Amino acid sequence: MSKPMTKPKINVERLASSIKDLSKFGRNESDGLDRTTFTTSELEAREWLKAELEKIDLDVRVDEAANIWAKRQGMEPTLPVIAFGSHIDTVPNGGKYDGALGVLMALEVMKVLEENDMTTRHPFELVSFSAEEPNPFGLSTFGSRAITGKLKKEDIVGVKDANGTLLTDALRKSGGNPDQFEAAVRESSELSAYVEVHIEQGKRLLNRSIPVGVVSAITGIYREEITVFGEANHAGTTLMEDRKDALSAASELILALEEVCRSYPENEVVGTVGKLNINPNSANIIPAQVDFTLEIRGKSKEQIEKVLSMWTDKAEKVKQARPIDIHRKILLDQPPAPMDEQVIQAIEQQAKLLNYESLELGSMAGHDATHMASITKSGMLFVPSIDGKSHCPEEESQIEDIEIVANVLLHSLLALDKGLDVSIND
Amino acid sequence: MSKPMTKPKINVERLASSIKDLSKFGRNESDGLDRTTFTTSELEAREWLKAELEKIDLDVRVDEAANIWAKRQGMEPTLPVIAFGSHIDTVPNGGKYDGALGVLMALEVMKVLEENDMTTRHPFELVSFSAEEPNPFGLSTFGSRAITGKLKKEDIVGVKDANGTLLTDALRKSGGNPDQFEAAVRESSELSAYVEVHIEQGKRLLNRSIPVGVVSAITGIYREEITVFGEANHAGTTLMEDRKDALSAASELILALEEVCRSYPENEVVGTVGKLNINPNSANIIPAQVDFTLEIRGKSKEQIEKVLSMWTDKAEKVKQARPIDIHRKILLDQPPAPMDEQVIQAIEQQAKLLNYESLELGSMAGHDATHMASITKSGMLFVPSIDGKSHCPEEESQIEDIEIVANVLLHSLLALDKGLDVSIND
Repeated sequence: MSKPMTKPKINVERLASSIKDLSKFGRNESDGLDRTTFTTSELEAREWLKAELEKIDLDVRVDEAANIWAKRQGMEPTLPVIAFGSHIDTVPNGGKYDGALGVLMALEVMKVLEENDMTTRHPFELVSFSAEEPNPFGLSTFGSRAITGKLKKEDIVGVKDANGTLLTDALRKSGGNPDQFEAAVRESSELSAYVEVHIEQGKRLLNRSIPVGVVSAITGIYREEITVFGEANHAGTTLMEDRKDALSAASELILALEEVCRSYPENEVVGTVGKLNINPNSANIIPAQVDFTLEIRGKSKEQIEKVLSMWTDKAEKVKQARPIDIHRKILLDQPPAPMDEQVIQAIEQQAKLLNYESLELGSMAGHDATHMASITKSGMLFVPSIDGKSHCPEEESQIEDIEIVANVLLHSLLALDKGLDVSIND
Repeated sequence: MSKPMTKPKINVERLASSIKDLSKFGRNESDGLDRTTFTTSELEAREWLKAELEKIDLDVRVDEAANIWAKRQGMEPTLPVIAFGSHIDTVPNGGKYDGALGVLMALEVMKVLEENDMTTRHPFELVSFSAEEPNPFGLSTFGSRAITGKLKKEDIVGVKDANGTLLTDALRKSGGNPDQFEAAVRESSELSAYVEVHIEQGKRLLNRSIPVGVVSAITGIYREEITVFGEANHAGTTLMEDRKDALSAASELILALEEVCRSYPENEVVGTVGKLNINPNSANIIPAQVDFTLEIRGKSKEQIEKVLSMWTDKAEKVKQARPIDIHRKILLDQPPAPMDEQVIQAIEQQAKLLNYESLELGSMAGHDATHMASITKSGMLFVPSIDGKSHCPEEESQIEDIEIVANVLLHSLLALDKGLDVSIND
């Protein structure tokens, strides 16, 4: 037999069928998925996943943060774990790929190993992280932050959603244990690597017709709340020259961010004003106050700092030119997470060996791998997104691309299993 | 006796005391007035006013639109009426002068005529219009629109506030009669003139230290609802060049309006974006849709049309430069109302005779006189506003200025009484 035929391969029909099965949980009338974390539909999806994992005799457990883990023993049980997975919760009216695809590919990898009766050196663990998406409790990447020690018991006690439901109660219902929350932490020494597959949520792969994305770094996210203080006044009797219009000033600040990001030499630097509130918000009153979020994302801290400083210069000019005041408050300063060079190389090499083109690119969205990178060698693969759409019912990826990336994942994990933790005496 | 001593004069202490008395109705803890139309506090204020009017033996009646009228007979009972007044309702947390001052000066004029035992040729009527201010039923200048035939029964039947209270029920409680609503209409032939005093709500008089404002025209108000359609997308994964950001486009449209109005050669032309809503309004999602109000005010239809056309040109450019769409909907197109030349001259002449400087100026706010101008010779006097403030607890005018304008009002009414409806045979 020629060499390519001997390689184990994922079963694309089986994977497509898993995608279809999981997408039934939370489906709404507009064909989107309402599977926000800890809701009934998400709990049902969890039960389905656990049953699938138990079918192939994996050692399934739910940790204190309600993350689902499924372990397959290796030949060298003392070696740290190679983990892979993603999340199965969705945004409201989301799609069936964001998160789910990473978990279902991990499941498919486990099935391929099982049916081929393969034994790896390292223990392999599938992980489905709790509450990756923004959720009613205001804590996204909940599960990965919990196991990397970034989320403490004190951060979750007393947290409620808008209906007054306690996060601790929701967590208990999902199999978590808020009382022993910090027991979920996994030490660096327990893990050898973490690999996550996700849809790209952009059009860079699609525009270049490249099926495999290899993430170089996960974007840093910097967020401020900007408040512009003007003065409410009558929209008729206040002459243009006497106005202290908070909205006109805010408009300049919004356009300044767009201009700075557009003119930035690299395109993986973006800035967004997505949320804005105006007061008093009446057709015949000059706006007294405008609050908005300013968000900057970039692959490096330097990029983010540069954009912020260019915007700050422009904001200063707006403040000098107008009789308004600007207050700034940092909401989030999540540094970029570079992916591990060894994992990146393993993925790129396996893609090449399988004859698929790959592209190294930054992840402009945050992922569980952001946090995993703080405790273990981490890497991510991206699947091209049709039209770049995500977080909507139209979110879609071609099954051909899914098959390609799943095979690259499988072989990357096998390559890492071979290459990691090799004693110099071997 | 020298001539000035023979002139009847208003009693400033009595007027100050009326202002104080009326300001007790609806007073809140921040010293503002909550006397929105048809509320309990406004009904109490109405009762107080009617009692004051009855004290000086005026013929008080409440019409079908709940406007309060108080008539003093003239020597020539067949002559049409000279009417004067304003309104006593306030905006939420408003001040004690907007509206109230015009009614209380009218009351003071009636008291002066009474105590001086003066008889005019024309019947004199004080009027306190219902619901001049924006109110929970969404119908401002309600009373003056009713009596000028601009508001029909069909416009008020079924109208509810946010609590589900029917306007017709509220009207009945205030002494109106929705079933015979259109009987409130006053024909042109019934009126000789209408004169209204109001605070300026701006700083033009104050900046020039002129105590008497003579309104040349009441501003036209043109209002559109602008909707900018972009596309919601991930704030991280969508490159700057791939964005359809509704808020950036809206920001350009907002600044374009400001620029057009600022550069307009006359300063009594203003444009405002006071109300704006953004969707989905989330820090990490590119805005898909922004709705905002665009308001333009000017003394002439030409001014408003010119500003609108300049803005439209700029909006077209924004639409061409960005992958967004703009929808426009006219909400209001209230033409400017020029004041009557004869009334203007009477006021200016009386100010001069009393040795007060006066300034002709446009009213940038709408008033009941806007509508009265459609049925009778109308004029307005402005009292300087301290710091130009209105619609807030800090709304204030100097008692010295109030006294001056009240005297000018009194003598202007007497001059009009003399000069209007003079038969060529006299």
